[in-house]
Amino acid sequence: MNRKIRLEYLKRKIMTAADAASLIKNGMTVATSGFTPSGYPKAVPLALAKRAEEGEEIKINLITGASVGDELDGALSRSNVIDKRYPYQTNDSLRNRINDGLIGFQDLHLSHVPQMLDYGFFGKIDMAIVEALAITEEGGIIPTTSVGLTPQAINNAEGIIIEINTAQPKELEGIHDIYITEKPPNRRPIPILHPKDRIGTTSIPCDISKIKAIIYTDIPDNVRPLGGIDEASKRISEYIIDFFNFEVKQGRLPKELLPLQSGVGSIANAVLGGLVDSKFYNLTCYTEVIQDSMFDLIDEGKVLMASGTALTPSIEGFKRLYDRMDFYRKHCILRPMEISNHPEVIRRLGVIAMNTAIEADIYGHVNSTMIAGSRMMNGIGGSGDFTRNGYFSIFTTHSTAKGGNISSIVPKVAHVDHTEHDVSVIVTEQGLADLRGTSPRERARKIIRNCAHPQYRDLLYDYLERAEKGFYRHQPQIIHEALSWHTRYLNTGSMKK
Amino acid sequence: MNRKIRLEYLKRKIMTAADAASLIKNGMTVATSGFTPSGYPKAVPLALAKRAEEGEEIKINLITGASVGDELDGALSRSNVIDKRYPYQTNDSLRNRINDGLIGFQDLHLSHVPQMLDYGFFGKIDMAIVEALAITEEGGIIPTTSVGLTPQAINNAEGIIIEINTAQPKELEGIHDIYITEKPPNRRPIPILHPKDRIGTTSIPCDISKIKAIIYTDIPDNVRPLGGIDEASKRISEYIIDFFNFEVKQGRLPKELLPLQSGVGSIANAVLGGLVDSKFYNLTCYTEVIQDSMFDLIDEGKVLMASGTALTPSIEGFKRLYDRMDFYRKHCILRPMEISNHPEVIRRLGVIAMNTAIEADIYGHVNSTMIAGSRMMNGIGGSGDFTRNGYFSIFTTHSTAKGGNISSIVPKVAHVDHTEHDVSVIVTEQGLADLRGTSPRERARKIIRNCAHPQYRDLLYDYLERAEKGFYRHQPQIIHEALSWHTRYLNTGSMKK
Ligand SMILES: CC(C)(COP(=O)(O)OP(=O)(O)OC[C@H]1O[C@@H](n2cnc3c(N)ncnc32)[C@H](O)[C@@H]1OP(=O)(O)O)[C@@H](O)C(=O)NCCC(=O)NCCS
Ligand SMILES: CC(C)(COP(=O)(O)OP(=O)(O)OC[C@H]1O[C@@H](n2cnc3c(N)ncnc32)[C@H](O)[C@@H]1OP(=O)(O)O)[C@@H](O)C(=O)NCCC(=O)NCCS
Repeated sequence: MNRKIRLEYLKRKIMTAADAASLIKNGMTVATSGFTPSGYPKAVPLALAKRAEEGEEIKINLITGASVGDELDGALSRSNVIDKRYPYQTNDSLRNRINDGLIGFQDLHLSHVPQMLDYGFFGKIDMAIVEALAITEEGGIIPTTSVGLTPQAINNAEGIIIEINTAQPKELEGIHDIYITEKPPNRRPIPILHPKDRIGTTSIPCDISKIKAIIYTDIPDNVRPLGGIDEASKRISEYIIDFFNFEVKQGRLPKELLPLQSGVGSIANAVLGGLVDSKFYNLTCYTEVIQDSMFDLIDEGKVLMASGTALTPSIEGFKRLYDRMDFYRKHCILRPMEISNHPEVIRRLGVIAMNTAIEADIYGHVNSTMIAGSRMMNGIGGSGDFTRNGYFSIFTTHSTAKGGNISSIVPKVAHVDHTEHDVSVIVTEQGLADLRGTSPRERARKIIRNCAHPQYRDLLYDYLERAEKGFYRHQPQIIHEALSWHTRYLNTGSMKK
Repeated sequence: MNRKIRLEYLKRKIMTAADAASLIKNGMTVATSGFTPSGYPKAVPLALAKRAEEGEEIKINLITGASVGDELDGALSRSNVIDKRYPYQTNDSLRNRINDGLIGFQDLHLSHVPQMLDYGFFGKIDMAIVEALAITEEGGIIPTTSVGLTPQAINNAEGIIIEINTAQPKELEGIHDIYITEKPPNRRPIPILHPKDRIGTTSIPCDISKIKAIIYTDIPDNVRPLGGIDEASKRISEYIIDFFNFEVKQGRLPKELLPLQSGVGSIANAVLGGLVDSKFYNLTCYTEVIQDSMFDLIDEGKVLMASGTALTPSIEGFKRLYDRMDFYRKHCILRPMEISNHPEVIRRLGVIAMNTAIEADIYGHVNSTMIAGSRMMNGIGGSGDFTRNGYFSIFTTHSTAKGGNISSIVPKVAHVDHTEHDVSVIVTEQGLADLRGTSPRERARKIIRNCAHPQYRDLLYDYLERAEKGFYRHQPQIIHEALSWHTRYLNTGSMKK
């Protein structure tokens, strides 16, 4: 226990999770640690949910780094504790309540959230709840498997509750690199020149007089099983690697490529997996989440350094990671999400951005968030931070969804998260469309020919050709028909005619 | 003349505009100086247009900093010389050909264009045509009234044609600050900490062996008369200044505010004009274009420093600027557009972004570029660079257009250039909606109540309330009706029912 709280004075703050939870009052705004199901508080949220289930009226605004585990988002949603939620989520219970209109959700670029806390744009932050590995002699908070917005939560909250999680391996100490930006007009350059650069401290400086409670827990991160890699994702991965080879040959990419960012989900995992068997080496990653396939790349010596804000292994990857934490710590850095997702650093390093779309349209707009323009899936996450600022930006998607009843290439996406100004390349299992330098009509033909599923190609050409007969021929649309594919799906269960 | 070409050797490259234009061949990609009708080449494009009018088959791809004057975009469009055009334009002849499908136009974020030249994404650049004030003893090119992408045009082109414009006042020398970024993976921080910081040289380094021709011209920048400030724009300006006052009172802005960026057009001019009569002082600007109202602010001592990439006075402002160039040079810096629009610097400085929308929707998406989703107006310009990276982002628009037949607040915009994740504040002459921290449905009510024209308010509430009865209540849409306002306008000439 001593090694966990290294400042004697703080031990008197130790209490039960229930007592700590009682510090959270109705109407409070609470910011927590956590990014993906990694490093989020668990015991206090569970105790809070219990109070609500026992009949107490309690509603909070909840701000996290990104998605978090079920002990936080799930438990608090089901017990109706969440009034408003920022900025990203992947939890079924929460998602359903958002889409039922019961929880107000604002979907934000992840790089914006830490500075919005600093700027006071969320109003007063009443409480921070953060998971920690330990508290140092200087009162520094050592995070666990993610950093997220913990530094800003700690800095801006009036009170702090700390969950020391003894299930997290002590070898995590030293993996973090905490750098805190100033507020304008006093900001200075962030001195990262390479993904391997360490520019900060290994713990988060904290005003310990704000610490209201410390609790112990041993609930592990709620990691999930890894989905298998399907044939389609493998093909997508091959197209991307071919594209990298071509760009190297053209002299537009160095042979070690540039730092890679890879989004979440099975396609993203397949793309990194494909690199294991490729001829590329001496790679680096500057990304958000470090997943299983990254450990393969590190094991093979293909990736020298992976910088992110969260370690998110699968259930299978969990043991392997924890068994060799000393090794992986030399090849991984966990940074605050403000830094992992920072436009300044992403643009300077020339990160290659790779993210997954729900759907894309023939003019190159991408929908990452909302089914039929209304139903929130997860949120934009960091995809905009990387897409806008990267060397170039790749979006992947299966060409169809729901057994072929949905075409993921449509005349017009039902919600735009990434504009035509931001998308360089679209890839499906059908092929790759390089959109750089193209006018909208050239783009449309490339996307239909290379990316759309053969089942939908003629329908798309038909739309395009009829639209081109209209009055405005820059980005031709038949405006009353542009969203008709979505309407057809909602009415008939299929986009097919 | 001597002061213009300070390197004796280069004088043998002097020729006529017609001879210089003959170096431009069919199929070439040409990059030019110029940003707004400022500092663009004039004589060589006119000579090139003449060749085409005389029957020669000649087509080029044309890349400029932003919009340019009629001698370049207008003359070359009318003579059918432009095949493809990047990245922004405001010329009637060009716009009409784009919308007739005769010229392929790709609309790009301005901050992306210089690096796309460096990265080779436009392919080989055959020729740069750049307007210059003079060529220094070291072969440096001194720009005139804008910098734009001239450094990247010069660096990446195989050949260079220089137009020395003797109509530009020699006192411009020293106003420029040329800083050139490295390519990834070797990029370093851009060391600007304040809009006033000079970090580079006063001329553009140039490999003079690439200079193929030097011509003299005295055609002045084709500046335009200033539109009057209407009542609505004045009201918009007042709402914004009230908002600034409120933010200062809340401690969310310092009393000198933060560096201001202000878009183009009459509303933008009115907003800066409003600051002249406000109580704010010690202001700075970090923007693209320095317009007339900025000179008023500098004269009054309200603005200490204005950093931009172009000086664009009106016809009325022209004489005043040129008469006092020595004075304004102390308060203005002209930078490459890569630096004026750089995400790194904009985010570090915490720039307040203010841009004009064509239309906005009830969920906070903004259309800056395309009427009815198809007809290109000008392009996104730098609005995305500032909006995404600013401290917060304000969009202004009149609540109606075309004599009230169009509502600029609609259920769903027909083209998205700025997403709901990027827009902090919307202002019309009806009022201001602060969208920070709001869920989509809260946003909708704020925007309808505060910004929509009374004539359209009930129709918008009606749409929202019926949409809320649907199945998905996060961002409720009636997908088959979402764009019906635009269809109604196209069919009947009015959005009214
Ligand atoms: C876009 C995103 C949802 C895709 O996730 P994924 O797990 O790779 O995608 P899947 O193919 O498994 O699809 C997820 C669901 O969407 C459905 N779907 C996919 N495409 C669809 C479409 N065009 N229309 C309707 N539904 C669609 C799938 O059927 C599946 O539904 P189910 O859960 O009911 O089975 C996910 O990548 C995401 O949230 N991205 C935004 C955030 C982001 O990019 N983060 C990384 C930044 S670092
Ligand atoms: C959006 C933009 C076109 C507005 O320009 P403006 O001159 O302030 O706008 P105006 O109110 O004069 O409108 C311009 C035209 O659009 C029309 N218009 C305005 N709103 C409209 C709407 N909702 N639907 C259809 N037409 C509309 C006007 O009627 C006018 O048409 P006209 O030229 O036929 O008279 C201009 O700001 C722009 O190009 N912005 C994008 C680039 C940018 O933001 N640059 C600055 C970055 S630093």
